[in-house]
Amino acid sequence: MKILVIGATGTIGQAVVANLEARHEVLQASKTQAALSVDICDEASLRALFEHCGPIDAIVSTTGNVHFGPLADMTAIDFNTGLQDKLLGQVNIALIGQHYLNANGCITLCSGIVSTEPVLGGVNATTVNAAIEAFALAAGVELPDNKRINVICPTVVTESLATYGDFFPGFESVPVNRVAKAYQRSIEGALTGQTFRVL
Amino acid sequence: MKILVIGATGTIGQAVVANLEARHEVLQASKTQAALSVDICDEASLRALFEHCGPIDAIVSTTGNVHFGPLADMTAIDFNTGLQDKLLGQVNIALIGQHYLNANGCITLCSGIVSTEPVLGGVNATTVNAAIEAFALAAGVELPDNKRINVICPTVVTESLATYGDFFPGFESVPVNRVAKAYQRSIEGALTGQTFRVL
Repeated sequence: MKILVIGATGTIGQAVVANLEARHEVLQASKTQAALSVDICDEASLRALFEHCGPIDAIVSTTGNVHFGPLADMTAIDFNTGLQDKLLGQVNIALIGQHYLNANGCITLCSGIVSTEPVLGGVNATTVNAAIEAFALAAGVELPDNKRINVICPTVVTESLATYGDFFPGFESVPVNRVAKAYQRSIEGALTGQTFRVL
Repeated sequence: MKILVIGATGTIGQAVVANLEARHEVLQASKTQAALSVDICDEASLRALFEHCGPIDAIVSTTGNVHFGPLADMTAIDFNTGLQDKLLGQVNIALIGQHYLNANGCITLCSGIVSTEPVLGGVNATTVNAAIEAFALAAGVELPDNKRINVICPTVVTESLATYGDFFPGFESVPVNRVAKAYQRSIEGALTGQTFRVL
């Protein structure tokens, strides 16, 4: 398969690439550090990336930012940052990418454990991550030609505990290679509209 | 209780007002036809409404628009309409309204059955409605002073079948007075972070 990974240089992205490269041709994109540059919040940038890659068999996203902060101080502008970035950015990967995806191809997006298990300061994160899972649920119904779409929902990753651990008190972490296996399961498996939870 | 209903002139809004008026002081707002005018997509308009009403015991929303259309034709602009209207509009009712809500007060927003049961053309609707339910789940964790927030998720309403029935083939409808009872349950009950499904 020819697979495009967006967010290829992040902790999860690197593990996904390492897993997939053993069996597939992998094109690596990220905002600044990968071979291919893309800004998922910029439609023109996404279109240019897909035009460059041509028809592909799988599209992977491991990227997107949300707003973290207390509900009591949150403004509409704060909240909209996560809607425009991790949610609409990934939706746009799917909306544009569907037209470059070969029959039987698969789109795999990312959410996160707070979609169903809220944490303090994570109101925007819960909303955005649950929205991504719902998007795939509905888009899976409409994609033609056996094209599929799924979401990977990891808990906090062991390799990222130093950065994000404080947001997840008492949460058990998972090693990033387990998250990479869930992406493999989405891409090489047969299901669509699913959220694969890595807990 | 002093209760503000936003969307008071719609099919569900009218039923909610009729139910609540028997026991409470109800202030009615909508975009154009109610005693109080408000555009939920305009922060200044929402702030002016809450300033006019002063401290309140419950805030109800029965309003918000989403984009309907095939996934194959959908653009980021299409998709963002629902994010900015039914999602961010209602989020903003909560973000601003929390500061006008008395202790023990309740915010009740609306989603819809497609949050978990997709229909053709409803990718944006599923995403937005699931996002609203997730927002309440997370916001319920952070609201102080026993303030609460819930979501009402009705299936298609019998009184609206002529308008919306074609989107919901084979779905059983519910009479709008059952939806109004769910709002009552949210407001006069004790739960928070919940989605009350009216099926």
